[in-house]
Amino acid sequence: MSGALAIRWNGQPVAQIPALSRGLHYGDGVFRTLLLHDGAMVAADAQLDRLLADAAALGIAAPPLARLQAELVAAACFGNGTVKLLLLRAGERRGYRPETDAADCLLIVYPPSARGSAAAIEGIKAIRSPVTLAAQPLLAGIKHLNRLEQVLASRDWPAGVDEAILGDDRGQPVCATRANLFWVRHGVLHTPALDRCGVAGVTRSRLLALAAAADIECRIGSQPWSALLAADEAFLSGSLIGIWPLRAIDGHCYEAARPVTRRLQGLLAHPSDVVPLNAR
Amino acid sequence: MSGALAIRWNGQPVAQIPALSRGLHYGDGVFRTLLLHDGAMVAADAQLDRLLADAAALGIAAPPLARLQAELVAAACFGNGTVKLLLLRAGERRGYRPETDAADCLLIVYPPSARGSAAAIEGIKAIRSPVTLAAQPLLAGIKHLNRLEQVLASRDWPAGVDEAILGDDRGQPVCATRANLFWVRHGVLHTPALDRCGVAGVTRSRLLALAAAADIECRIGSQPWSALLAADEAFLSGSLIGIWPLRAIDGHCYEAARPVTRRLQGLLAHPSDVVPLNAR
Repeated sequence: MSGALAIRWNGQPVAQIPALSRGLHYGDGVFRTLLLHDGAMVAADAQLDRLLADAAALGIAAPPLARLQAELVAAACFGNGTVKLLLLRAGERRGYRPETDAADCLLIVYPPSARGSAAAIEGIKAIRSPVTLAAQPLLAGIKHLNRLEQVLASRDWPAGVDEAILGDDRGQPVCATRANLFWVRHGVLHTPALDRCGVAGVTRSRLLALAAAADIECRIGSQPWSALLAADEAFLSGSLIGIWPLRAIDGHCYEAARPVTRRLQGLLAHPSDVVPLNAR
Repeated sequence: MSGALAIRWNGQPVAQIPALSRGLHYGDGVFRTLLLHDGAMVAADAQLDRLLADAAALGIAAPPLARLQAELVAAACFGNGTVKLLLLRAGERRGYRPETDAADCLLIVYPPSARGSAAAIEGIKAIRSPVTLAAQPLLAGIKHLNRLEQVLASRDWPAGVDEAILGDDRGQPVCATRANLFWVRHGVLHTPALDRCGVAGVTRSRLLALAAAADIECRIGSQPWSALLAADEAFLSGSLIGIWPLRAIDGHCYEAARPVTRRLQGLLAHPSDVVPLNAR
């Protein structure tokens, strides 16, 4: 199957999946995307924890943890790549009502992303997306398979733009299409609350823990766009990218000096962010 | 593949679909469900029109109409059943951004539903769902594959309940999990607007056209729950069910006399609603 190095369905190599899967028909499943770097799966335990928590939130009973860990071990033999682990609610009957809480497990290993560490050093440009995230507290924070808003928000970026920042129905910034959002103002680290929309990324959680341990004050909460634009520093986080500083959002530029962002890049030590010290 | 009489992927019989389909990973696709009755596909032209309109709304270029019609002809040989026709955006690369607007076509023929015409005669009981539909005007009305809200709302109905009525974030009733909602007050037919959430069903459109042609006044608009509960008659519509009168929502019962509902059942002449005249 083009585009993937390996695909496994419940532990068996496959190219295809059952056409009646509820994952396809309803998006009735959850997933996490992991970075495989030099044979090691970055933050594997935290990723599996979140995958299981998300599955539980939808009433999906995950396979035993050891089976999921075995899937990641099978993927690790590829050395470097992007690993997507999905849990889809089992059952092939037509109709929204679940017939079981059991799950099928789909593992996909993709080749490594071509993107180097330039984005981590120089930062990226983002736009403010015209797509507004709908508020659905029952699904907020969960990395589920209903991702049409992200698809719509990923179309038609101008040249030179790497991400789009999405806001909610209250006009507050929430996240990027595939990354969480942070900003720094007067030394305090801010990130939006994710109780009405957005996905709670593992790297976001790790950064909040690292910042707290390093005595960087953290505030989680929804704030207006003006707060994001008034920030001294702003950045995106994700499992594949680590930390991407924001150089600009639309016409608004951020300062090139990013002391807190660089400190967090050092603490996170993400493979994509590990750059020569003199480049920082 | 258990549960289906036939599955076709781009016109070829299959049991499985590509594991990298954007339909699975993002719900990046649309579908319609048709009733196949005695070798005839009910409202096939209208269903294909809506399928193509929904695809266009997501920027998905549908296959030529003749190809889709050929799929329905292939399904019709099963005589009776439930036919689901899906268009999934093609492309197997990882990432939300679409790489093409081309579509893959998936056709599934399921056995006929066991449900007889009793629901059309006697009506059904519904509950008010604890799930609130999120407002997303960009996706409202479209029958896309992001259906987790319907899955959540379909769990845990009490015994004897056949549907759940969902409201929006303004506290206004919108639809049922798999049907549109109508009510009648002083001879006027009401149905909620679907510009913020909900799915615009083909049977809903047909009923509005039939009612207008029969000089039944129709009003499309959002109204509070109190308007639904104050109605003289209320019913659900869907391609598979035709018209299901609502006998009760939670503890609130509707009158057994349903002159407008019965008139519309006669005009729609849906196979599931065609019942002996003396039973009406």
